[in-house]
Amino acid sequence: MIIALSGGIGGAKLALGLSHVLPPEELLILANTGDDFEHLGLSISPDIDTLTYALAGLDNQELGWGRRDETWSFMETLASIGGETWFRLGDRDLALHVERTRRLRAGETLSAVTADIARRLGIGPRILPMSDDPVRTRLLSDDGWLDLQHWFVREQTRPAVRAVEFAGAETARPNPALLAALGARPRAVVICPSNPFISIGPILAVPGLREAIAGCGAPVIAVSPIIAGQAVKGPTARMFEQAGIVPSAAAVAARYADLLTHYVMEPDDDATGIEARIIRAPTLMRSLEDKIALARVVLDAA
Amino acid sequence: MIIALSGGIGGAKLALGLSHVLPPEELLILANTGDDFEHLGLSISPDIDTLTYALAGLDNQELGWGRRDETWSFMETLASIGGETWFRLGDRDLALHVERTRRLRAGETLSAVTADIARRLGIGPRILPMSDDPVRTRLLSDDGWLDLQHWFVREQTRPAVRAVEFAGAETARPNPALLAALGARPRAVVICPSNPFISIGPILAVPGLREAIAGCGAPVIAVSPIIAGQAVKGPTARMFEQAGIVPSAAAVAARYADLLTHYVMEPDDDATGIEARIIRAPTLMRSLEDKIALARVVLDAA
Repeated sequence: MIIALSGGIGGAKLALGLSHVLPPEELLILANTGDDFEHLGLSISPDIDTLTYALAGLDNQELGWGRRDETWSFMETLASIGGETWFRLGDRDLALHVERTRRLRAGETLSAVTADIARRLGIGPRILPMSDDPVRTRLLSDDGWLDLQHWFVREQTRPAVRAVEFAGAETARPNPALLAALGARPRAVVICPSNPFISIGPILAVPGLREAIAGCGAPVIAVSPIIAGQAVKGPTARMFEQAGIVPSAAAVAARYADLLTHYVMEPDDDATGIEARIIRAPTLMRSLEDKIALARVVLDAA
Repeated sequence: MIIALSGGIGGAKLALGLSHVLPPEELLILANTGDDFEHLGLSISPDIDTLTYALAGLDNQELGWGRRDETWSFMETLASIGGETWFRLGDRDLALHVERTRRLRAGETLSAVTADIARRLGIGPRILPMSDDPVRTRLLSDDGWLDLQHWFVREQTRPAVRAVEFAGAETARPNPALLAALGARPRAVVICPSNPFISIGPILAVPGLREAIAGCGAPVIAVSPIIAGQAVKGPTARMFEQAGIVPSAAAVAARYADLLTHYVMEPDDDATGIEARIIRAPTLMRSLEDKIALARVVLDAA
C-alpha cells in the first residue's frame, strides 16, 4: 500500500499520477480537511473535492479548480438576490456540496460520504479525510484571524500571515482506516508537493498521526512543492518569507525532517542540509505524462 | 388595501393580475406555507416561490412551474452521485432555496427573507407568509401519511387522499402584518382560485385567521378554481371526489360559506345553494390580459 498525503491542486496532480501506476487497492490518498468550511449553509471540503474531481477526470482544466463542463446559473442568480458570491460555486460542483451536507447532517461520517461519492464517480483508489472530526485552519494575518478560505479566496492571499493554527486538531482523532493502513506495513508514505503550512501541516497536526507515520517502518518520500525558490502555484513561497525563512526545497524538507527518508527535488535546487536521501527529478507536472513520470520516480524510491 | 389569499399556480395568476391594476402599496398577498418542506437540507416554500417568480416576471412559462431561463446542471450532477432527484430544482431556482435556508438558519423570519428577496427582484406588492411558524400539510392517503410535496410531486398525486392535516397549525401565529392589515379596514379580502383543501385550507387553519377575516368588515370575494366540474390544473376536482363530494364551483363556495360575501364563477356553472352574491365572469386565465380582466372583475365587486 502507498499512502499519499495531499492537499489540493499540486497534491492531486501527483495522486492522479500514482493512480495511473498503481492498482487501485494499493493506493490510499489522505486528504487535508483543514480547508473545510461552512459556506451558504453547505459543508465544503475543498481538498477532498479537488482530489475527487482530479481522480474522476472531472476537474476543470481551464479554471484550474472546480469541476469541468461547469455552468454558473446558481451563482449569477444568487448575486441577484443579494447572496455572498466571493466563493464561486458552479452548478455541478454545488451538487456535491448539497449532497454531502445532507448526508453529514443525517449522521454519516465524512469518510463514508467521500467514499460513496468516489465510488459512484468510478474512482478506484481510496480517498480518506485525515479525520472525521472537524479541524479548521485559521490564519493570524495582518487583518486579524481569518478562516483559510476567507484568506485564500475572499482576500486572495493578500494579508500577510503571522501564524497558523488548526482549531479542533487537539481533539481530532486520526482516520481509523489510515491508522490501520499505517499499521499494516505500507510500502511507502508519500508527502505530495502541497503547501507544508496549510495542506500537509493540518494532517500532521492530528494527534498521533505524525508519530504513526514515523513509526510505520516504511520509507517516507516527500516531493518538493518549491522549484528554484518559487511555488508552482499558490502562496507557499510567500508564506515561508512571511515566516522569515528563505523559500527553498530544503526549507520544505526541514519541516518534515523527523519523518523523511527520501526527498524528490529538481536537479538544479540546493540540497544543503537535507538529511534524507535526495532523488533528483523534474517535479513540474503539466501533462498527465509528467504526473505519471513523477509517480514512477516516487515508486522507484519506495 | 386588497388582501389576496393564495396558493401556487392558480392563485399566482390572479395575484399577478391584481398587481397590474393596483398600486403596489394597496396589494398584500398572503401565501400558503403548508406546502413548505425541507428537501436536500434546504427550506423550500413552493407557493411563496411561485408567487415571487410570477410577480417578478421570472416564472417559467414553458414548464408552468419554476424559474425561467433555467438550467439543470445541478440536478443532472446530483443524479450522478446518487442524490434524490424527484423534486426538480433548477440551478437558478436553487439560489433562492440556498439563500433562504442560510438566512432562516441565521435567525431571520420567513417574512423578512421573503420581503427582502421580493424587493431585490423588483416586486412592488407585499408577499406575506401566512405565518412565520412552520405549518406542514400532511395527507392521509391510500399509501399512508405523506407530506404534501411527496404526494404532489414524488407520487404525482396518485394515492387517493382520505384526510388532510396541518401539522403545527394549532400553535402557529398568524402573520402579524396580516392581522394589522385586516384591522385597518381593508377594501376586500380575495380568496384566489386555489385548491381549497391544500392551498387555502392551511391558511384558514392558522388560529384566529379565519375569525380575523370574518370580522374585518370588508367584502370577502372568492374566485372559483373549478370550471364545469373540472380544475384548471392540479388535483382539486379529484380531492372533492375522494372526499365524497361532487366537484363544482358551489362545492368550493361551501367551504368558505362563513366568510364569503361575493363569489366569482363561470357564466355556465350552477350556483345553487351559494349564499354569497354571485358574479359571473370568465375565470380561465391563459394570457396576462385574462388575469388583468379577472382582477378587474374582483375589484369591481370590492
